[in-house]
Amino acid sequence: MGTVAEFDLSAYLISKAALITAELEQAVPVGYPTTVFESMRYSLLSGGKRLRPALCLASCDIVGGDPSAAMPTACGLEMLHTASLIHDDLPAMDNDDYRRGKPSNHKVFGDGIAVLTGDALWSYALEFILLNTRQVPAERLLRVLHTLINRVGVDGLVGGQVVDIQHEGIEEIDLPTVDYIHAHKTGSMIDAAVVTGAIIGGASEDVIARMSRYARKIGIAFQIIDDVLDGTASQQQLGKTPNKDERAHKATYPRLVGIAESTRRARELVDSAKKELDSFGDRATLLLAIADHICTRKS
Amino acid sequence: MGTVAEFDLSAYLISKAALITAELEQAVPVGYPTTVFESMRYSLLSGGKRLRPALCLASCDIVGGDPSAAMPTACGLEMLHTASLIHDDLPAMDNDDYRRGKPSNHKVFGDGIAVLTGDALWSYALEFILLNTRQVPAERLLRVLHTLINRVGVDGLVGGQVVDIQHEGIEEIDLPTVDYIHAHKTGSMIDAAVVTGAIIGGASEDVIARMSRYARKIGIAFQIIDDVLDGTASQQQLGKTPNKDERAHKATYPRLVGIAESTRRARELVDSAKKELDSFGDRATLLLAIADHICTRKS
Repeated sequence: MGTVAEFDLSAYLISKAALITAELEQAVPVGYPTTVFESMRYSLLSGGKRLRPALCLASCDIVGGDPSAAMPTACGLEMLHTASLIHDDLPAMDNDDYRRGKPSNHKVFGDGIAVLTGDALWSYALEFILLNTRQVPAERLLRVLHTLINRVGVDGLVGGQVVDIQHEGIEEIDLPTVDYIHAHKTGSMIDAAVVTGAIIGGASEDVIARMSRYARKIGIAFQIIDDVLDGTASQQQLGKTPNKDERAHKATYPRLVGIAESTRRARELVDSAKKELDSFGDRATLLLAIADHICTRKS
Repeated sequence: MGTVAEFDLSAYLISKAALITAELEQAVPVGYPTTVFESMRYSLLSGGKRLRPALCLASCDIVGGDPSAAMPTACGLEMLHTASLIHDDLPAMDNDDYRRGKPSNHKVFGDGIAVLTGDALWSYALEFILLNTRQVPAERLLRVLHTLINRVGVDGLVGGQVVDIQHEGIEEIDLPTVDYIHAHKTGSMIDAAVVTGAIIGGASEDVIARMSRYARKIGIAFQIIDDVLDGTASQQQLGKTPNKDERAHKATYPRLVGIAESTRRARELVDSAKKELDSFGDRATLLLAIADHICTRKS
């Protein structure tokens, strides 16, 4: 992809992010107890690239579905992602004071409300999908829920975060462990986004499997580049504290193989991911551009 | 109910608790990452009355359903309940060092793993129900999931816990606020247990509504008696730290209206709950006995 296509994608992602944010703004009106709703809105509406929702809508579209049917799930994905970030940032975990350019949730609302806000967003996401998804058969909706529930649990996000915090400060860490952490902490939800979009769009098993392979590969590439940026980008670019990984002796690709080799591997994964979409022809343009963008982004 | 019926119910509840515990033991084999599975099993298999699962199975039975179809949901309810206890016991929340007669989860595994174990059990519960529920139509299973997801979120458990921790140490608290906390922190999951059992059993809307009223009333009575016991029972009887409520200036019925009036109100709620089951005749024996038991229990 050349510079022009890159620019187009950036504009597209920015406009999609604005659309998703407007939907999220409507999705979580302030209710009682006020504090927890304000806390949910604080973390949910404070920026973010909205990559997972964008992938879900694009995935539904590429398989021939109506992306508007996937909008509640796209919003739910962002709520689940935000819930995991709130818990990850807690002092008992990654202990990060900044997120998306603002103080982390627990710095504003306290640790107790932060734990409860994560819990609240978790169930709010699934209930939002249940209440707002239209014209999707019950069997298919069950599968969407199952996919999301699986990817946030021990087989996904939680599993990745457990292994991650267990390896902080430990010098001996191998690449398979780092791959496990990346595949679970990041890959799982990228996969959930793409797979749920395909399920809602009515894709065949074969197509869902191919889309899932695409997602898993770009998910790991995304996290490798995240680690590279953590060591090279500024706090303003990242919206969170840079150099955290090194200070916490985090298990990262750059720490094990260096920045150049990390970037090469991310590129390799992205190229392999793009091949999974060969059969879609022109319909794949957007998902191909997103894959490329993962390697070239600066924040 | 006389002494003999009470004794029979106790024996019944003990045998049901053993059955549920055996099911839970099978339901969560140790997987990878080991720590989080051991932590889940530690909290899940360390005793507990298993009241919510017992109510779910009894509710399915009373409406004419096959209780075995409700067993995965019964187990899931206990997982969700345990997840909420792990988060509630955290230092950032109720800060309780003991639960079910043993050190709380975070005292053994640390705060970070405790947060993640709650998150893990949350999704494990729903996935366990999805994977193991047999012969229940998709529409009905979706409704079971929706009920559970709703009752653990801002409209249920989380909402109650938020208001609870916000009122700790505050002298001015009114009875409606205490009712809100009890109805949400405790009533919601008792309601979820009874309602999901009825849904799985194929109950009509009218029956589900009546069962829900029964559940909401015994749920509040249960929490009022819990507060009374907190001030009068020993640590050995409770399995958790007694007198915690008073020390934390917790919003409780005894603090506002005294122990005698609290006990009278609990009795009134239980009697009213039992009336909701009038039309079931003899089939209601078990649920009537459970309602009575709530007021007469010593731990």
